[in-house]
Formats: sequence, structure tokens, C-alpha cells
Amino acid sequence: MSVTAAKGFTAAGIAAGIKENGNPDLALVVNNGPRRAAAGVFTSNRVKAAPVLWSEQVLKAGQVSAVVLNSGGANACTGPRGFQDTHATAEKAADVLGRGAIEVAVCSTGLIGVLLPMDKLLPGIDAAAAQLSEHGGEKAAIAIKTTDTVHKTSVVTRDGWTVGGMAKGAGMLAPGLATMLVVLTTDADTDNETLDRALRAATKVTFDRVDSDGCMSTNDTVLLLASGASGITPGDEEFAEAVREVCADLGRQLIGDAEGASKDIKVEVVGAATEEDAVEVGRSIARNNLLKCAIHGEDPNWGRVLSAIGTTRAAFEPDQLNVAINGVWVCKNGSVGEDRELVDMRYREVHIVADLAAGTETATIWTNDLTADYVHENSAYSS
Amino acid sequence: MSVTAAKGFTAAGIAAGIKENGNPDLALVVNNGPRRAAAGVFTSNRVKAAPVLWSEQVLKAGQVSAVVLNSGGANACTGPRGFQDTHATAEKAADVLGRGAIEVAVCSTGLIGVLLPMDKLLPGIDAAAAQLSEHGGEKAAIAIKTTDTVHKTSVVTRDGWTVGGMAKGAGMLAPGLATMLVVLTTDADTDNETLDRALRAATKVTFDRVDSDGCMSTNDTVLLLASGASGITPGDEEFAEAVREVCADLGRQLIGDAEGASKDIKVEVVGAATEEDAVEVGRSIARNNLLKCAIHGEDPNWGRVLSAIGTTRAAFEPDQLNVAINGVWVCKNGSVGEDRELVDMRYREVHIVADLAAGTETATIWTNDLTADYVHENSAYSS
Repeated sequence: MSVTAAKGFTAAGIAAGIKENGNPDLALVVNNGPRRAAAGVFTSNRVKAAPVLWSEQVLKAGQVSAVVLNSGGANACTGPRGFQDTHATAEKAADVLGRGAIEVAVCSTGLIGVLLPMDKLLPGIDAAAAQLSEHGGEKAAIAIKTTDTVHKTSVVTRDGWTVGGMAKGAGMLAPGLATMLVVLTTDADTDNETLDRALRAATKVTFDRVDSDGCMSTNDTVLLLASGASGITPGDEEFAEAVREVCADLGRQLIGDAEGASKDIKVEVVGAATEEDAVEVGRSIARNNLLKCAIHGEDPNWGRVLSAIGTTRAAFEPDQLNVAINGVWVCKNGSVGEDRELVDMRYREVHIVADLAAGTETATIWTNDLTADYVHENSAYSS
Repeated sequence: MSVTAAKGFTAAGIAAGIKENGNPDLALVVNNGPRRAAAGVFTSNRVKAAPVLWSEQVLKAGQVSAVVLNSGGANACTGPRGFQDTHATAEKAADVLGRGAIEVAVCSTGLIGVLLPMDKLLPGIDAAAAQLSEHGGEKAAIAIKTTDTVHKTSVVTRDGWTVGGMAKGAGMLAPGLATMLVVLTTDADTDNETLDRALRAATKVTFDRVDSDGCMSTNDTVLLLASGASGITPGDEEFAEAVREVCADLGRQLIGDAEGASKDIKVEVVGAATEEDAVEVGRSIARNNLLKCAIHGEDPNWGRVLSAIGTTRAAFEPDQLNVAINGVWVCKNGSVGEDRELVDMRYREVHIVADLAAGTETATIWTNDLTADYVHENSAYSS
């Protein structure tokens, strides 16, 4: 049900001809109110795509009536012309929907450095608007796929209100978000400030802790729109929890569909002096190409975990580090622990625990293995 | 001629049986004086192998008479027993050579987390000592190979004095050195302080700017030994230049033999406000897996260069960035530049220039592409 699970929203997904292969490539999500509250989190990459620069302004204006999303082109590094194209996209959608352009967020994904075919995109908005439906969430989720092999949606329903959403992303997943477009919707009756708090708290421990290949995108956008259509205002904590649950589910789906991956790796850092230390160590492990290759080969090569920990500034003593892989403590006190032959790595999910023995804080980072398929997919992407 | 190009040195390389496949795995380099001056640079990984911890102490003591190097095992993360083994190795070599153990540096390379077969290694030192020769440099260079496909040596001769050396390293090449063992020798009559200044200045702009896969080793060691046998004391600058030349040559050979690589990539950052900015941007580009895959596919995907620059804290404006790939300015002012079809990427060496348009400082980082062969090699290394 995706973005249309919550009351007050319609959506559509169509093939506008932006992608040369004729696959769906344009999605429209409309908030029919009564509220049009919104919050957004964007890439921390300093090279930001035109739609990110635009949508940041939309969020500042404070009201989001619709989101236009396209795959088939990122509209990043496209100069003033690219920004004009994003603006024209918002204006077109605003015209069709009878709203103001500054209420229309825009998201794009695909190859960097290529202008969008506006002669296809603008008529596509008419076509998408004509198909807007309370059942359109699934099609919208399909239309934003790039190298995704499956579309990703999630819904959490509470007592009379709902949070739902869709996500796309399969590579370039790294902190500060990823090549990740996410639209979340809710019919809870909440204001911008509540949405913003809930969304930032959720992304901090979900999307920001998904690190597929260490590469940070120019286009990452996570939007949360509230229609108020349920008439219910949940408690802050209850609402934040629901948003976090949907984000965690979508984040897990992103890792599960990461480009070329054959293993989903949960890196759990425990015994850290601070949460920051735990996150730094988790990221360092998650980004270690040699370890990611070893996991691909079902090789519990814990030396590469220690080598990754050793590059961080976290508090620890080398001779107190402990590492478990799938429940076997293969490294104890910085040295050889239980027999590595005991580690069973046949299944897709791999669980690494790194114990810094320096405190009680923890953090979990999700990543995936590095495979020949990842290389193939990304060496042929733009050609 | 390697480490025996300079007068006053003998060396040997033998198969001691540390490697199960019977390949050469033990090298011995001896400084016969009259001087036994030395300098060393070690990994900045906080998880340091036993031989690194030991050799750091040897350097502090101030005199190096010999270096024992083994492949077939890194002796890292091996606890107190591993350190005892390194100590026993130094004592054995000292006995055989009639010197003190604290004058014997030890280097190890291979798999982390496995104890060395001391019953093979210690008799191997006798065997190596029996073969010490002024022509043994080549064999020593061969004995330290792990996944290296070729052995690496370099020699620079000046007016009456020489700097020569050998290196091993093929993966885990990243700043703070790499899985890199380097022994440099000179017959110049120089003291420890001069050696130290020359070596640190050289590694800073050579080995420290070689970044194959972003992974930092537990074992990196670069040693520079001086015998004084030429009787000549070169000028500081002239000497430093010779050391830098040998280090640059060996560094270039390391990248040329990086695991699974099919392209050597020279990332040149220009127009930076500071040298630190240039290095940070160069590293960020060199470590971008998506870009490294694209280069492998001979795809001049400059968007991934901009995306990498955008993750740094360097001074720049996104709309002033310029990028050239093999001489074609595919990105100008942060947007589409010359036709990417003009870029010829058929040759092994690829040259990326990133112009930050923020100053006059520059730095060059060498890296390589990311390939399916890298994945295969590193997913099967320890099994």
C-alpha cells in the first residue's frame, strides 16, 4: 500500500519515456489534506542535485502538497539549466493540481551529469495526474526503481492512524543518506515540528546506519508528509516509534537489495565508550573492502575486522578487543579465540559483533558483501 | 640489485617452509657497517603486529644491524605468544650474526591471526645466514612476496653513493602505509636524524599517497639503513631527493601490481586552497568504489568524481569544480563539459585531474580500479 496506505493521499506511477527501455519512470504523490505538513532530510553531500536544492526550499516554505519523483536521470551536476528543469517540473505539477509550485517537492534518481528529457517528463505529469488513485502507492514505488530488483514499501498501522512509505536505492548507500529516495506518508494529525523531530530521530538510527558501498549520493531525499486525515494526534513518542519502524523496515529492504550483494551483514558494535565511537567503528568495519570480499567468500577473516577497528579514534585497547562472527567468538583479547571452523556462513545474513571492551554504548550498521556482480553492475552503468 | 646495491650490505632469500607451497618466504638483510644508522616508519593502525611493536623498539635503541623478514604469516593479533616469537626471531638472528637482538628489526607479512611456525622459521635463519651475499638483494626481494605477482626493487646511484631498496605489497594499500614492507639501504655516511628526516619526507609524498583499496594494514614497515661504506656524506637535500626517488619508484610499482587491478589511476588534485585539502579530496576520489568500477569499465563517469569531492571538507564551490579524464575536461563549472565520448580509456594508466578552483595547492594520489579479480582474490585469501 506504500504511500497510499495512510488516508488523504493519492499516487500514481507511469512510464513517461524518460527511461529509454520504456519502464515506469515517473511517480506522483499528492497530499489531499486537510493538513499538508511535511518534514525532509537531504543528502549531506556538498554537491547537491537540482531537485535537492529545490526541495530544501519547498520544505523551508513549510507545506508540501505533492511530490514528483523521476527515475532515469539524477539531474545532478547539470548547472543552472538543471535547476530550471526542476523548477519547471514543480510548476507543471502545481498547475495540474491547482496548487502553488513552492508546495511541490521534486526527487530525481539515475545517472549524474545528464539533463532530463523535459519533453517527456512534463507531459508525463499530466498522464500521472490522470491516474492518481488511493490505490496508486504500489505503482509509484515501482516507478522510482533504478537498479533496484524489487520495489520497497512498508506500512505500520496504529490505533486509527497509519505511517506508510516507499523507498528506492540499491547502491551508493552511505551515511548522510544514500542514493535513496524515500517518501513516507501519514494520516496522523501532526505539525511540521513533530514530523521533523520524528523523521530526524528515525533516519539517524536507520537510513544513516545503512552503508552499502561507502559512497554518498548527490540526490538522497527522505520526505515525511502528514495529511491529518485520521483526525488523530498520536503521542510524540508513539508517533516517532512508528516512523522509526517504517524507516528501519525500508532500510533493511535497501540493504537486502544492494547492488550485486550476496550477503547482508549486520555489524553490531558493543562495549563502546560512546555511541559516536560505536558508530565510527561500525562504519569502518562496514567499509572495509577486504572484509567485504572475505564475507563474500564465506571466510570468517576476523583479522580484517581488527585491522578496520585499528584505523578509528575510538576508545579501546588492542589486546582487549573481541569479535564474534555468527555467534562464534573467533577473536578474544585481540588474539585468536574460538576455532574459526565453527563459524557457519552459509546463510545470507551475517552477524558480526565487535566488542570494544571500553564501555556500554552500542550501534548497529548494516552493510553487504563486495562481489564481482557489484563490479560488473557498476562498471557498465552509464555506458 | 635491491638492498645490496649499496656497499656494506649483504642479503639472502630462502624457502624456510613457512609457506606451505614451498615458495621463498624468509629474507635476511645485514648491514656490515662501518655505520649501522637507521630510520623507520610504521603503520598508523592502532592494531599493530608483533614485529611492528618490536621493530619500533629497535629503532628507538638507535642501531640496526640486520632485518629479518618473513612472508607466509603476519604475526598480527597473536597476543603475547606472537610477541615472544618475534623476540625469539631477533635473538636467533643476533646469535648467528654475533650482534645484539635489539639491533635486529623484524618484519612479517601474510594472514592476520595465525602464529608463525617457529620450528621452520628459526632454522631458516641459519640457512639464510649461510647464503648471505653482496648479490643477495634480488633473492631477498623475492622471498617477501605474498600476493605480489612480481618482486619490486629500485636503485638510485649518485656520485659515489647509492640508495637502493625492495618492497612488497599488493593489497591493503592505504595511507599510514599499507601492507607494505620496504627495506631501503644506502652506503651514504649519514646519521639517524638525517635518515629520519629524509625517510619521513619521502614517505609522506610517496607511500602515503598510494591508496589501493582504502584498507590499512597492521604490519606496514619502511626501514632505511645506512652503512656509511661509501665514506661520502651527501648534502641533506640531495640525499632526501634520492630517497624520495627510490620511494616513488617502489610506490608506483606497488600500484602497478595491486591485487586484481587492470588500471593504474593517477588522481591529481589542483587548485586547492591547501595541500591538506588536495590530499583529502584525492583520497576521497581514490576510495570511491563506484568510480573505481566505472574506470574498470572504461567509463569516464565524472559524476562519481564530483560525488566524491562533495563528501570532503575541502574549500570549493560546487559550481566551480572542473574535472578532466585523460585530458578531456568532461566537467566544467560543476556541470557537463566536453563530450565524454572524446575520452580514450584504452590504456592501463588513467589520469584524473580534479580542479577545485580554490587556490594553487596540489597533490597526487595513486590508486587502481576495482575489479572482479580483486573480489575473487580477496574472498579466497585465507581459505
